[in-house]
Amino acid sequence: MNNARKCCLTLGIVLVVACTATGNAQSDPLPSWNETAPKQAIIAFVRKVTTLGSPDFVPVAGRIATFDNDGTLWVEQPMYVQLAFAMARVKQVAPQHPEWKTQQPFKGVLDGDMKAVAASGEHGLVEMMMATHAGMSVEQFQKIVSDWLDTATDPKFHKPYTECIYQPMVELLTYLQSNGFKTFIVSGGGVEFMRPWGEKVYGIPPEQVIGSSIKTKFEVINGKPDLMRLPEINFIDDGPGKPVGINQYIGLRPIAAFGNSDGDLQMLEWTAAGSGPRLMLLVHHTDGIREYAYDRHSSFGKLDKALDEANAKGWTVVSMKDDWKRIFAFQQ
Amino acid sequence: MNNARKCCLTLGIVLVVACTATGNAQSDPLPSWNETAPKQAIIAFVRKVTTLGSPDFVPVAGRIATFDNDGTLWVEQPMYVQLAFAMARVKQVAPQHPEWKTQQPFKGVLDGDMKAVAASGEHGLVEMMMATHAGMSVEQFQKIVSDWLDTATDPKFHKPYTECIYQPMVELLTYLQSNGFKTFIVSGGGVEFMRPWGEKVYGIPPEQVIGSSIKTKFEVINGKPDLMRLPEINFIDDGPGKPVGINQYIGLRPIAAFGNSDGDLQMLEWTAAGSGPRLMLLVHHTDGIREYAYDRHSSFGKLDKALDEANAKGWTVVSMKDDWKRIFAFQQ
Repeated sequence: MNNARKCCLTLGIVLVVACTATGNAQSDPLPSWNETAPKQAIIAFVRKVTTLGSPDFVPVAGRIATFDNDGTLWVEQPMYVQLAFAMARVKQVAPQHPEWKTQQPFKGVLDGDMKAVAASGEHGLVEMMMATHAGMSVEQFQKIVSDWLDTATDPKFHKPYTECIYQPMVELLTYLQSNGFKTFIVSGGGVEFMRPWGEKVYGIPPEQVIGSSIKTKFEVINGKPDLMRLPEINFIDDGPGKPVGINQYIGLRPIAAFGNSDGDLQMLEWTAAGSGPRLMLLVHHTDGIREYAYDRHSSFGKLDKALDEANAKGWTVVSMKDDWKRIFAFQQ
Repeated sequence: MNNARKCCLTLGIVLVVACTATGNAQSDPLPSWNETAPKQAIIAFVRKVTTLGSPDFVPVAGRIATFDNDGTLWVEQPMYVQLAFAMARVKQVAPQHPEWKTQQPFKGVLDGDMKAVAASGEHGLVEMMMATHAGMSVEQFQKIVSDWLDTATDPKFHKPYTECIYQPMVELLTYLQSNGFKTFIVSGGGVEFMRPWGEKVYGIPPEQVIGSSIKTKFEVINGKPDLMRLPEINFIDDGPGKPVGINQYIGLRPIAAFGNSDGDLQMLEWTAAGSGPRLMLLVHHTDGIREYAYDRHSSFGKLDKALDEANAKGWTVVSMKDDWKRIFAFQQ
């Protein structure tokens, strides 16, 4: 070990000790949470896994926490943000596709006929995703996403989507990160749709974002090597795909997992099945006034089996109405 | 931003400044490198991307460096270590497979007949990999790998494989890590073969290892959720697959890439094609005494097109014989 490395390690220890002390003693790390059971469960969990000498102590390398995105970190009603993006993109590139005037689900999008879009079923949705998400380089796609997010607004809150994020969950991310956790997004959404803004909005860098993906291909075009996005599904990071994705990307089992729907059930089950201390948490959308109220019968973010299992197994269930002082930073 | 976060950030800045100063002023970060062009190129590159105010300065978030493993970080002759593992595993589980006594490539492995193994071609090798790498949980496989590495030794150096790593490259990894780089392994080898020991041996945690993989499936067996390894290829992280894998796992283009064979060519090309400062480096095996000498005609780690391209484009080529003072830590 060279001196620079030794220096870093020594200072690193000082850093962790100093920050833990500051975090615990001087301020409430979760000010937007009410003093109810979920907040207590989170703080008790973090204290025990970070207290040296505790039987539940977990070294920093093992402090892996995974977060679903849609409905767990940001709004997923009245439709997934990525679906709104795909529909906006259909309208944007429609002039180059005259055939879409008669072809579903594109015709439905252009006519504003959501029933026709829904009637095209899963096949129609996949076709729309491929038509709007493939055919460009990965860097071109990043720019398309960033440009859209710069101007698009949520239809209920009239704010940029990247402000429609749950302030209590942002505080939770920061709290975990300050306590040596590595926080990952594990979402059914497209990995390349989330990466361009995850660091700015959540403090989660691109390499800690796991999601669904389409295939890409290395090509040299006019002497310039690039990665082109192909209209072919590579991986669906949802339901039983979430533990698969976590293992593929991280190679470690999380000790804490956060979700809000049946698509997160297997991630929570797999997290729970590891040995040692564990925290499994579901966000339950119970606030029709400040956000939305939905669960067992929702088209987006259906929470049914996972709610039953959480209740049966004693996982933490957050009622947004009862457990959160505020939902968005813009709601004071 | 809460106080704990502010504290971390402030101390983090102190840490980086302190470590950079220590690393530069007090010690040679690359003591096993001769004072030849490659060492100078590495140090000049690191200085310019880490010097605040330099036109080539790169913020920490963009300091991504990718390393091939076989032949770049550890020995790949007389065969890939993972192939030696697969053959050892064939012998270990052969009692449960009486049919292998007459079936190639298994018969060849059991008889020590490498010609028969080679004659089974790519199809035979894939069959052997699937038979030895699938059918267990991911955690069982980690244990199988770790147990084998605890006792197996390299046939030429008679040391554990995890000691047959190139000391100059280990110093390079540490040097980059000390300067705020995030270092990744990007290998054609199996991701789950490398993860169990990457942190201990190279200081690279599991989530920073990218490699080839087979598919896994989430299953609940006797009430216990687990990930089972299936005999089906998921991803080949070699050649044009390397930039694809880097984009899939990291989502950022590296600014420095290190390889030793034609399988690394596209990773280096893609790295080189980004804007801003870049370092592309090839390890050339030129030392038949202290290690091995091979390039254009080798079965493992063939270096032909990439060597031509490196010479044509002025990438850094390390001659192990001329540029490294020592190759292994055990060679003083």
